[in-house]
Amino acid sequence: MSLIVQKYGGTSVGTVERIQAVAEKVARGHRLGDKLVVAVSAMSGETNRLIGLAREIDAQPSMREMDVLVSTGEQVTIALLCMALNKLGIEARSYTGGQVRILTDNAHGKARIKEIDGHRIEGDLDAGRVVVVAGFQGSDEDGNITTLGRGGSDTTAVALAAALNADECQIYTDVDGVYTTDPRVVSRAQRLDKITFDEMLEMASQGSKILQIRSVEFAGKYNVPLRVMSSFEEGPGTLISLEDDDQMEKAVVSGIAFNRDEAKLTIRGIPDQPGVAYKVLGAISAANIEIDVIVQNVAKDNSATITFTVHRNDLSQAETLLKQIAEDLGAEEIDADDQIAKVSIVGVGMRSHAGVAATMFEALANENINIQLITTSEIKTTVVIEERYLELAVRALHSGFGLDAPSTDQA
Amino acid sequence: MSLIVQKYGGTSVGTVERIQAVAEKVARGHRLGDKLVVAVSAMSGETNRLIGLAREIDAQPSMREMDVLVSTGEQVTIALLCMALNKLGIEARSYTGGQVRILTDNAHGKARIKEIDGHRIEGDLDAGRVVVVAGFQGSDEDGNITTLGRGGSDTTAVALAAALNADECQIYTDVDGVYTTDPRVVSRAQRLDKITFDEMLEMASQGSKILQIRSVEFAGKYNVPLRVMSSFEEGPGTLISLEDDDQMEKAVVSGIAFNRDEAKLTIRGIPDQPGVAYKVLGAISAANIEIDVIVQNVAKDNSATITFTVHRNDLSQAETLLKQIAEDLGAEEIDADDQIAKVSIVGVGMRSHAGVAATMFEALANENINIQLITTSEIKTTVVIEERYLELAVRALHSGFGLDAPSTDQA
Repeated sequence: MSLIVQKYGGTSVGTVERIQAVAEKVARGHRLGDKLVVAVSAMSGETNRLIGLAREIDAQPSMREMDVLVSTGEQVTIALLCMALNKLGIEARSYTGGQVRILTDNAHGKARIKEIDGHRIEGDLDAGRVVVVAGFQGSDEDGNITTLGRGGSDTTAVALAAALNADECQIYTDVDGVYTTDPRVVSRAQRLDKITFDEMLEMASQGSKILQIRSVEFAGKYNVPLRVMSSFEEGPGTLISLEDDDQMEKAVVSGIAFNRDEAKLTIRGIPDQPGVAYKVLGAISAANIEIDVIVQNVAKDNSATITFTVHRNDLSQAETLLKQIAEDLGAEEIDADDQIAKVSIVGVGMRSHAGVAATMFEALANENINIQLITTSEIKTTVVIEERYLELAVRALHSGFGLDAPSTDQA
Repeated sequence: MSLIVQKYGGTSVGTVERIQAVAEKVARGHRLGDKLVVAVSAMSGETNRLIGLAREIDAQPSMREMDVLVSTGEQVTIALLCMALNKLGIEARSYTGGQVRILTDNAHGKARIKEIDGHRIEGDLDAGRVVVVAGFQGSDEDGNITTLGRGGSDTTAVALAAALNADECQIYTDVDGVYTTDPRVVSRAQRLDKITFDEMLEMASQGSKILQIRSVEFAGKYNVPLRVMSSFEEGPGTLISLEDDDQMEKAVVSGIAFNRDEAKLTIRGIPDQPGVAYKVLGAISAANIEIDVIVQNVAKDNSATITFTVHRNDLSQAETLLKQIAEDLGAEEIDADDQIAKVSIVGVGMRSHAGVAATMFEALANENINIQLITTSEIKTTVVIEERYLELAVRALHSGFGLDAPSTDQA
């Protein structure tokens, strides 16, 4: 008998019919003898409807009251799902975050879970009941309702799985797993059976937005095996777990991640002295602009060049700041470019295999794609290229690392 | 400085605009220096929307989950009202029933309040905040969400007023007070400045459906002065309180109540023996049919006649039962009539004034209205008449007891 925590997102519970379909899915697991805890989001559209009501009153409403308001969304879902389970003859009991109790700090709208009391849930499971918990919410020391921020239902599920020492945490979503890359770009992208937490983090932060990053970090920290599955189709999904024994069998590269949300800024001809990187990047960070890739080089004349990327929305602000910095430092020139894209190969196999980066550069060279920046980490190599070559680059790498599914075009 | 509990029903908070109007009203009281606790219902239509979702899943959903579901309605309102108060520069804090905490028994859907912890609310009031509480809900010993049943927000307000020892509990509604009778029947009906709890109970149970009976009983029990006021107009409303000193000044009759929801059943020619009333009425009650007026008489031949009224919806079931009883008792005949109406004169002044009933009968006789049944209590005299004479009877009595407003038709 396994203890499984399942999570269903807003689309999966978007209508009464879909809630009934989720109940059928849960019922099947229950009948197989699994102990089941189900975390759910608000019905899709409901959170936005509630936020809309609040905005009619105040553009910046009290965060405390906002949490009281939006937490009703999940509360509606837990009640309806329990009713649907009852209708199938399964005893079920719903709990709000505060009822569980999921104790959080008091950062309304983006609270973090401090502790979960699994006592009440365990009692229900032992009595043969399915337990349905409102995702995305908890309560602080004083009993005030808090929310974990958008998408926080994944975190609720993982935290419940950790607290209850569950065998697996299954995240049901509208895709049937994690793919080697975006199937909209590469038609022969393949579903991965397994992936490590670290790889998933690199894939997620690069734009494969299936899971909230925080929930993956959380799962990794507490070693909760996570499985991404489809709400709408049967299938094994993708298991996300710690690196395991059969790692040797794995491909060197698990997937290709990419994103076109960034812009590149370069400052050239800065005197190469200690502290210039701090002077340049510190001022940008101080303005709350997040910096992603950073590369620094020294030119022949000993002057330094620093290139970094920021979100495109922050480009004009960053550019203004950088102009001022260039003047202060007596730098030669600055340069801004928002026609770039970032492509990464991700895989824990890279650690033990030399030449992975070389294979990457070769694949890009074969397509005549110029590489503007390169950065590397333990399990990821990232290049920045001209945006218009993005799809070409992703396809070349997907194929170059042997990730293409067997062709089904020809018999 | 007074401590006032205000209650706004679903129509008063039915839209964002109306919630903003309620906030303005609350803000005025707050600025005058009153300590304010506000109990609110769900936005009108919301409770029915939620019940509709549940019914799509199950015609008879679990009452526990039903409470989890419908309690979200008031939770939305408390958050929005606090936001609207904040927007007006007033510090406000919302609490669900469970957060207050309003402790109830565990009769889901019709729970009764056992205890209210006023501690948290008092802290907020002392800090100068307005406190907004979700009506209609609480939580049981185990922290399960409960609801007090439809209309229970009035009860929440009164119970809060009792627990906090408030100076007054103001029920805002869509009428501007309690009237001598229904103004739709008698155009010269007048708003009453004052009425006693007992009178209000008699008026309410007779169909002047402004306040939930339970909340009036509760207010009477804990001697909480209740004031019925309009959400939409300014005015003093009607104060409902214990009988007081200036009672002598009051009219003998405060109002005329009526209802046409009942039907009359008669069983004739029953042997006049001890226990026949029990045999007849016990069987009806055992079927969970509520009996209102009961009259028993003995005929010349010593056989007894019993007449009673039930709700019209229960008539056919009651008639079937009565036929069986008549057979068992060897009664002569039974008779059913749903074309009846009940009219009552209500007033604590009756106690000390002889001849009030006579005045009633005279007024009806003058209009040639036949009285089918008469029952009396300390502060009420009720007659049952043919339904088609109802309006005529109410107008005759309203005028006969001097309740008509001064005519404004002629200058």
